[in-house]
Amino acid sequence: MAYFDNAATTFPKPECVYDFMKTFYRECGGNVGRGSHKLSIGAGKMVSETRSRLKKLLHCENKQIVFTPSATIALNMILQGILDGEITSGANVYISPFEHNAVTRVLHHYENMGKINVHLLAIRENLTHDFEKIQTQFAKDSPDLMVVSHASNVIGLISPVEKLCVMAKKHKAVTVIDMAQTAGLVDINVGLETIDFAVFAGHKTLYGPTGIGGFAMKPDFDLKPVLFGGTGFESANQDMPNDIPQRYEMGTFNIVGIAGLYASLGWILDEGLDYLWEHEQLKRKELLKILRTYDFIRVVGDDKNNRYVGIVSCVIDGLPSDTAASVFAEKNIAVRSGLQCAPLAHKTLGTFPSGTIRFSCSAFTSDADFADLKQSLEWIKENI
Amino acid sequence: MAYFDNAATTFPKPECVYDFMKTFYRECGGNVGRGSHKLSIGAGKMVSETRSRLKKLLHCENKQIVFTPSATIALNMILQGILDGEITSGANVYISPFEHNAVTRVLHHYENMGKINVHLLAIRENLTHDFEKIQTQFAKDSPDLMVVSHASNVIGLISPVEKLCVMAKKHKAVTVIDMAQTAGLVDINVGLETIDFAVFAGHKTLYGPTGIGGFAMKPDFDLKPVLFGGTGFESANQDMPNDIPQRYEMGTFNIVGIAGLYASLGWILDEGLDYLWEHEQLKRKELLKILRTYDFIRVVGDDKNNRYVGIVSCVIDGLPSDTAASVFAEKNIAVRSGLQCAPLAHKTLGTFPSGTIRFSCSAFTSDADFADLKQSLEWIKENI
Repeated sequence: MAYFDNAATTFPKPECVYDFMKTFYRECGGNVGRGSHKLSIGAGKMVSETRSRLKKLLHCENKQIVFTPSATIALNMILQGILDGEITSGANVYISPFEHNAVTRVLHHYENMGKINVHLLAIRENLTHDFEKIQTQFAKDSPDLMVVSHASNVIGLISPVEKLCVMAKKHKAVTVIDMAQTAGLVDINVGLETIDFAVFAGHKTLYGPTGIGGFAMKPDFDLKPVLFGGTGFESANQDMPNDIPQRYEMGTFNIVGIAGLYASLGWILDEGLDYLWEHEQLKRKELLKILRTYDFIRVVGDDKNNRYVGIVSCVIDGLPSDTAASVFAEKNIAVRSGLQCAPLAHKTLGTFPSGTIRFSCSAFTSDADFADLKQSLEWIKENI
Repeated sequence: MAYFDNAATTFPKPECVYDFMKTFYRECGGNVGRGSHKLSIGAGKMVSETRSRLKKLLHCENKQIVFTPSATIALNMILQGILDGEITSGANVYISPFEHNAVTRVLHHYENMGKINVHLLAIRENLTHDFEKIQTQFAKDSPDLMVVSHASNVIGLISPVEKLCVMAKKHKAVTVIDMAQTAGLVDINVGLETIDFAVFAGHKTLYGPTGIGGFAMKPDFDLKPVLFGGTGFESANQDMPNDIPQRYEMGTFNIVGIAGLYASLGWILDEGLDYLWEHEQLKRKELLKILRTYDFIRVVGDDKNNRYVGIVSCVIDGLPSDTAASVFAEKNIAVRSGLQCAPLAHKTLGTFPSGTIRFSCSAFTSDADFADLKQSLEWIKENI
C-alpha cells in the first residue's frame, strides 16, 4: 500500500507513538484529574507535559491549551461559543474561500437562523488573499469574527494568517485559525496578540492518534461554554467552572489519545520543525514532478509563487474522481477523491461538484511509494 | 496498586484490548469512511462490526448506534438536541435524584434560560423509586423528557429504568437512560419501544479505552443536530445529512478507540453478561464484608433488598473523604473521594458537600487487591 492520504490522517505514525500509547495505557491507564491515587497522578503529569509541548511547538506560552476530542469539536465549541455569546445578531463573519465543512456547516446553522452574514475573504487570480480588496471589504462590513484555515485541505495552499489576523484585529474582530493541516509542520507564532484561537488536530500533521485535538486560546477570553458535564473539579457548582482549561474540558479525558500525542510531540520536537518542513517540501516537489509527466493529469490550484504543505489535488481527463480513486485503490495506492469535506474550496477552484483526486504526503512517504504511484499512472496511461 | 476506581475507568482492560488497539492502528490506521483505499475499508468494516456487537449486547437490533467521543458528549447531543428542538418552553424534565453532572449541568443551562422545569423523581426511604408518588408527579406536571441513570455512579444502586420509561411514555415523554455504569454488565432490553435513547461509555463497564462512547437511538427520532462538521458523506450539503448515524458523527472517527471497543466487546460477549454480573456481585459482597468489619466505617446507601453494581460508597468517622483518599493513595489503594461529579446524588444521600470514599470493582479486582485493602484499613484502625 502506497499511502497518499496523509491529509485525512497521517499513516503510519512514528513507532514511538504506537509503543507509548500501549505502554502508558497498560501501565498508567487511570483516570486523569479524577483521583489522588498513583495511576491518576501519573496520567495528570503526562497531560500537563503534553500541554507544555504544544505551547513550545506553537510558541504560545501566553495562551492556554484546551483538549477536545477533535478539531471539528474544537471549532464547534469556539464558533458556537462566540456566536451564542456577546456577538450581536447580524454579525459579519469572514472566512477564507477554502474552508472545510467543520467551519462552513457550523456557520450555515447560524446563517439559517438569520444571526450572521458570512463573507468570503477576497482572493486574487493566483488564489492568494487580496489584501487591498479585503481592506475594502472590512471597511464596508466591519468583521466581528474571522475564521481562516492555515492551509487548505484540498490543495495545501498556505494562507497568510498572521497578516489577516492583524487586519481583522484592527476592526476588533475575533480571530480563529484552523491549523488542522499545519500544526507541527508550518512554523508560526500562535502567541501573537492578534490571534485569539488556534485549532489543532492531533492525528494529522501532529502525527498523534485520532480522538484528540484542541485549541490554544487567550486565558482572558470570555468564551461561552457550549458543552457541559463533569470536570472532576468544583463539582458542586452547576455552572461550568471559570478556570481554563477545565471550563471547556468536560467528561473523561481521552488519556490514551493524549499519550499518543505526547509521544508524537516529542518526536516532532526532536526531528525539528524546519527539518520536517523541508522534507515535506521535497516530497511535494516529487509528487508534482510525477503527476506533471502525464498530459492527461491536470494539477489544480498550484502556483510556483505560493507556499503549500504536502498536498496536491488533480483531475484526470475523462476519469471522474471517484472512478479514479477506485482505480488507485485497485492498484494499492491510497488517495482521497471527491470534495474532501470542503465543497466551498472546490467551488473556488472550479472543481465543484465532481471534486479532485488528492495526494498528500507525510514524513514517512517513501521512494517506494512514489515508485508505486508511477507504476499505477503508467497503467492508467496504457489502459484508460 | 490495588485499583478500586473502576467506576471512573476500568483498569486494567482485557489484554486483547491493548493488543488489538496497537495491532489494528499500526496496520490499518487509515481514516474510516473517508476513502476507498484498503486501509480505510478495513477500518470501515471494523466500525460497522463494532456497531453490530453493541446492538447484540444491548438487544437493540431495531435501534441505530451513534458513536461519540464520550458519554458526556452523547448526553449533550441528546439533551440539547431535544431541548433546542420541538419541545416547548416550560417543558417538564424529570431526572432521578442520583444524576451525574453530565446530565445536571446540561439541564442547569436550560433551567437558567427559563426554558425547562427540572423535577426529581420521587424515591422511598430505601432509595428506590416510589412509583405511586411518581404517578402523582406525572399527573400533576406531565413529563416531556425523562433522564435516568441506570446505576448511580456514587453508590451503584440500579434504577428500574424499564418500568420508569413505560410510565413516562404513557405521557409521551422522551426517555433517556444513562448506562455509563451498566452497559456490558447489567442485562437490559434497550430495544424496548419505550426507550428512546440509551447512552454508553466505552471505557467503564464496556472495558474499552477512553475517547469513545455513544448512544443507541430510534432511527426515526427527529433529534436536532447540535454539533456540525464534515461527515465524508453528502459533502455538498451544508446541513448535516439526514442519514443516521452520519447526522450525529461529525469529524474524524476515533478509530483507535473504536478498535479497543471492538476488542473489549468481543471479550464481553465471550465471557457472557451473566458471568460478568455474577462475578461482580461476589466482588461487591466481599467489599461490603471487609468494610463492615470496621466500626469506624459507615457504608452509605446500601440496602440488602436493592440491586447494585460493584460500587460501594462510605464515610470514615473523623476522617474527611479527601484526607482518607490521600491515606489510601499513600497505601497504594486507588479510590475516589469527594462528590464524584454527582453533587445531586450526595444531596440525596445526605453526604453533601464532603462526599464519600468510593470503592468500585471490575472483573479484574483480585484477592490480592482485597488483601491490600484490608491491610490499609488495619493501618487506619491502628493509626488514625
